[in-house]
Amino acid sequence: MTPLEFRHAVRNGQFRLPTAGQCGAYAQANLVILPQAHADAFLLFCQRNPKACPLLAVGEPGQWNVAALGADMDLRADVPGYNIYRDGQLASQPHALHDVWRDDLVAFAIGCSFSFEQMLMDAGIALRHVEQRRNVAMYRTHIDNQKAGPFGGKLVVSMRPMKARDAIRAIQITSRYPAIHGAPVHLGDPALIGIADIAQPDYGDAVAIAADELPVFWACGVTPQEAIREARLPLVITHQPGYMLVTDIPNASLAAF
Amino acid sequence: MTPLEFRHAVRNGQFRLPTAGQCGAYAQANLVILPQAHADAFLLFCQRNPKACPLLAVGEPGQWNVAALGADMDLRADVPGYNIYRDGQLASQPHALHDVWRDDLVAFAIGCSFSFEQMLMDAGIALRHVEQRRNVAMYRTHIDNQKAGPFGGKLVVSMRPMKARDAIRAIQITSRYPAIHGAPVHLGDPALIGIADIAQPDYGDAVAIAADELPVFWACGVTPQEAIREARLPLVITHQPGYMLVTDIPNASLAAF
Repeated sequence: MTPLEFRHAVRNGQFRLPTAGQCGAYAQANLVILPQAHADAFLLFCQRNPKACPLLAVGEPGQWNVAALGADMDLRADVPGYNIYRDGQLASQPHALHDVWRDDLVAFAIGCSFSFEQMLMDAGIALRHVEQRRNVAMYRTHIDNQKAGPFGGKLVVSMRPMKARDAIRAIQITSRYPAIHGAPVHLGDPALIGIADIAQPDYGDAVAIAADELPVFWACGVTPQEAIREARLPLVITHQPGYMLVTDIPNASLAAF
Repeated sequence: MTPLEFRHAVRNGQFRLPTAGQCGAYAQANLVILPQAHADAFLLFCQRNPKACPLLAVGEPGQWNVAALGADMDLRADVPGYNIYRDGQLASQPHALHDVWRDDLVAFAIGCSFSFEQMLMDAGIALRHVEQRRNVAMYRTHIDNQKAGPFGGKLVVSMRPMKARDAIRAIQITSRYPAIHGAPVHLGDPALIGIADIAQPDYGDAVAIAADELPVFWACGVTPQEAIREARLPLVITHQPGYMLVTDIPNASLAAF
């Protein structure tokens, strides 16, 4: 299936599952949709926190067909599941946004680790959570995000256990892709970034770390969702974690070198 | 001082110290000089162990003015100290090779970590052994080199303690320089590569590793000296560890990308 065919399947209600592994050669995106009144501050938040919030595209106010993300795009219906937050609280989880769409809504598409996971697996690096068909383990760190307007909060990281040799190779591979979180932000001792118990992720599923492995931590696209909840805005719409927007952007085209 | 001026100072007996920090923008080299009868096997050993033995240049038999390494080069006198091995035993440590030079001797110049240390420091990464004016700590691992002819032995690594963030940056920086050992071969638990006691290096000086640091291990140019000693050839000449050949090759020109 092409990304366009996949989006049509989503739009028609034929696909309502997590998108991991779908159209693996193409970038998937985290989605944040905000009223124009808060869009400039959120854009600045992304600029100041580029490892957690690398922007693939930003729409114009009211625009749901953002061509930079793909042909015949409809951001109101092309994601298998949305979270609607009102005053910082999760209010509903619809499959489409036609009822709530407004002419002042601005869409932000943020790079997603599904893209670099594909490249790691292509390089022969096994990913335990993929093998075990679990969601990746994610943790809130003690690292403050750089603030912008109402947006702040702590950096959230995803963790993948690896042997040192694979960790070194993974750093090389992901360094080429600043648009999909880039190089890891930490590896080794979790306590050094404020993770008290590696067996208790704040999001996703725990995986075991073998004696000959290091935990390797990447900045995570859940970070902006934390910042958004803390900002307690009247209305914010996001994708549901794991239910991403599949774009027409080839992952390979995002290589910085 | 230019590299040529520095080499002239060495040649004239005005400089007989370790070369760390001299002509920092230019590549320094490990030197191995062998009779032609063993040169092909040693070339193959370098090809099969490129992380420990990245070749900057190989001379013709008898050639001591290898232009690829610098102008007015004299490999018989431009290194501040030589080791002469006979039958695998250190036989003498002269300051020049005029007495022992032969028309069948072939010189190999191998990249040196002094080059990437300069780049790490330029990037703001502090190196403890440099701060403490010690030699870098080096360890024999349990990792077998790929054999070629009489050459084999174990991989020797150098170790630098770093915070995780600096280790990630150091992997990015050194990955650009395959000609000077490239990316690390290991980081974290020393036991996983056969190092029983990190406080007891096999060469060089121990440095402390802080609680918030990881030991980061690079393949080391001492590896071929181990292989050469084990091969017990009638005659091999090397530089003395730390007393390197200063070349005219700008470090920056060695970047692979």
